[in-house]
Amino acid sequence: MGTDNLKKMINRIAEIGADPSGGCSRIFGSGPLAECRKFLPAYFRDCGMHTCTDAAGNVHGIYAEDAPGKEIIVGSHYDTVRQGGKFDGVLGFIAACEAVRSIRKSGIPCRYPIHVIATNGEEGNELDGTFGSRAMAGILPLDDPVWMKKAETYGYTAEGLRSARLDADSAGYYLELHIEQGPTLWQSGEQIGIVTGIVGLRRYHITVHGVSNHAGTTMMELRKDALVGAAHLVLLADQIARDMGHHMVATVGTLQVSPGSVAVIPGQVDMVLEIRNEDEHLLDQYWQSFSEKAGSYGWDIDTASLVEKKPIKCSNELEQVIEDACIKNHLKYRFMPSGATHDGNAMSLVAPVGMIFVPSIEGISHSPHENTDWQDVENGYQILLQTLISLEGK
Amino acid sequence: MGTDNLKKMINRIAEIGADPSGGCSRIFGSGPLAECRKFLPAYFRDCGMHTCTDAAGNVHGIYAEDAPGKEIIVGSHYDTVRQGGKFDGVLGFIAACEAVRSIRKSGIPCRYPIHVIATNGEEGNELDGTFGSRAMAGILPLDDPVWMKKAETYGYTAEGLRSARLDADSAGYYLELHIEQGPTLWQSGEQIGIVTGIVGLRRYHITVHGVSNHAGTTMMELRKDALVGAAHLVLLADQIARDMGHHMVATVGTLQVSPGSVAVIPGQVDMVLEIRNEDEHLLDQYWQSFSEKAGSYGWDIDTASLVEKKPIKCSNELEQVIEDACIKNHLKYRFMPSGATHDGNAMSLVAPVGMIFVPSIEGISHSPHENTDWQDVENGYQILLQTLISLEGK
Repeated sequence: MGTDNLKKMINRIAEIGADPSGGCSRIFGSGPLAECRKFLPAYFRDCGMHTCTDAAGNVHGIYAEDAPGKEIIVGSHYDTVRQGGKFDGVLGFIAACEAVRSIRKSGIPCRYPIHVIATNGEEGNELDGTFGSRAMAGILPLDDPVWMKKAETYGYTAEGLRSARLDADSAGYYLELHIEQGPTLWQSGEQIGIVTGIVGLRRYHITVHGVSNHAGTTMMELRKDALVGAAHLVLLADQIARDMGHHMVATVGTLQVSPGSVAVIPGQVDMVLEIRNEDEHLLDQYWQSFSEKAGSYGWDIDTASLVEKKPIKCSNELEQVIEDACIKNHLKYRFMPSGATHDGNAMSLVAPVGMIFVPSIEGISHSPHENTDWQDVENGYQILLQTLISLEGK
Repeated sequence: MGTDNLKKMINRIAEIGADPSGGCSRIFGSGPLAECRKFLPAYFRDCGMHTCTDAAGNVHGIYAEDAPGKEIIVGSHYDTVRQGGKFDGVLGFIAACEAVRSIRKSGIPCRYPIHVIATNGEEGNELDGTFGSRAMAGILPLDDPVWMKKAETYGYTAEGLRSARLDADSAGYYLELHIEQGPTLWQSGEQIGIVTGIVGLRRYHITVHGVSNHAGTTMMELRKDALVGAAHLVLLADQIARDMGHHMVATVGTLQVSPGSVAVIPGQVDMVLEIRNEDEHLLDQYWQSFSEKAGSYGWDIDTASLVEKKPIKCSNELEQVIEDACIKNHLKYRFMPSGATHDGNAMSLVAPVGMIFVPSIEGISHSPHENTDWQDVENGYQILLQTLISLEGK
């Protein structure tokens, strides 16, 4: 029954922001994301929770709010990347809602309130990703006037964002079920990933300055083409990551050419370089190497740090409870780090974090081709539910 | 008096689509371009012409329409690149209008009608540049359904565009005054360029196919990042032009990354490569070299020819008349090819072409920093006026 609802609701939410590509586009600040935010409270209530939506756009549901212990916070995000898949984020909070529905129906007495969250703006966006969970953790850069100005264009105020902060003293755990978004479980045939930690992430804005001029009358030897300079940096960024190894990854995911006319030599290129690793020292080493070499191609370059998220470690206690559930359910599992950032990064400041992964078919994610077998969805849901029940019984 | 009006009108038109950059953005299909199109007929009438606007958006003015000879067509374009300058195009048709005003005032009898044109969409655009003049020359690809579909999104119909064709039998000459848009005259200190021909131009749409995936969980060795593939091609395009010499130029002016999120490996890049040269064989040779090497980087690549404009030769007779005017006015001049495409490319199919260049300060064009000394504007206007008077007196 929980599973039927799970499938129905995941498919229902996939309709909000459905994309011609076959995926979903509920990107930060978009109409479809607002539509989803308005849709969720009725569903949360239907699962037996009181709900509210905070000033950062996170949707909250509370069950057993009079239980004496600290809250078990459980959920994931409701935004997607552009042309993303239907499980990324959605699986986590729908499974949490259905677990509450099941616990309520079974009449299990709760020692801890369950606090379901569907978070806003987890994916990379102009306000830097894990927006909603950073608001709850109280770590948004509200004192940075440049950032606040951007936040205001989305309708946020410093006062509102400050009010979204959660009280760490009243939070006992943070739990999240998520698709792996990588090929490890898919390739190994294991059914559950017990996450041991989340990689650190840094994003840098890079501006390459050239000289814009007429593409027909400016001879090659007189040019300073910003896109040619940017091409050198894209290749450099890729090569340093390959040379370093140790699971270092580097990606230039956005690049804008200015003025961007076919007959005009590019005068400026703006791009964002993202690097991720479990080891902060390796992230330092990458950036030092990139910065040193980037200046050697002859273009003027500006760089600015946009985001810096430290690696986090998951709770050993929660790892143990999740492992017990896997053993009880005869599911094959592995302990593994997460290559993707999650709301757990920020939520680790609020409560000890536990994360459960289920396989992504062929490891594909952030793509309309993202998919997860419904049996794996069911497995993940059962592990989440039993983890909650175990915690409630402690 | 003609000069005062010239300056006044150039500055007046620069207000239409004035850009925060300090330049003008009257790009193809934009509101400011439509505003300019609506503005011009009253000005043409004020200069003493009957006017009409054809279905391709070209604005026409006719003076001395009952004169017995073939028309002298004279003008230039009223669109700009994004963040372009105020002289590019505008100088040509304003000088033509003011020349008509002057000829009318002086009462010189006309043997040939003067047909002033302000052309639409000369700059590179989705319908491939020199749009208006290609309509007048009858060489738009009206039978290409893909092109026509795009044209329809701008409100054009095949029937309308066909109706814009000019009758070559009634056209005697095509004359255009334009800024050089390169550094030759500026560096040499010469005041007038007598154009001997216009370089050929080709544009190719290039699509690089990669595999979009999560930027955190997809290890470097498992990636096919379309932007890394595109970076190789941008550098290749630049290097081949440098290696070939002979004034070969190559530019990638637009590049779009898809899906374009900071946390997603690019799955596709679309870009436009433009090459220009006076010699068609060198253009062939460039493209052959690029095509052969582009496949060697390991990415799937699609290429499609967007535009192919052949080099053209200017009329020796018009070169002579223009030279005589320069000598009479004691202006320093040189014969030179044009590295930029102009409406003259298409108009060469309608009538013999003559072009007059004036210096661009520091050779800068297609930029908000484009500028031309008002004395040079005056010189260009005088040469255009006297060329018209000489032709009328023949």
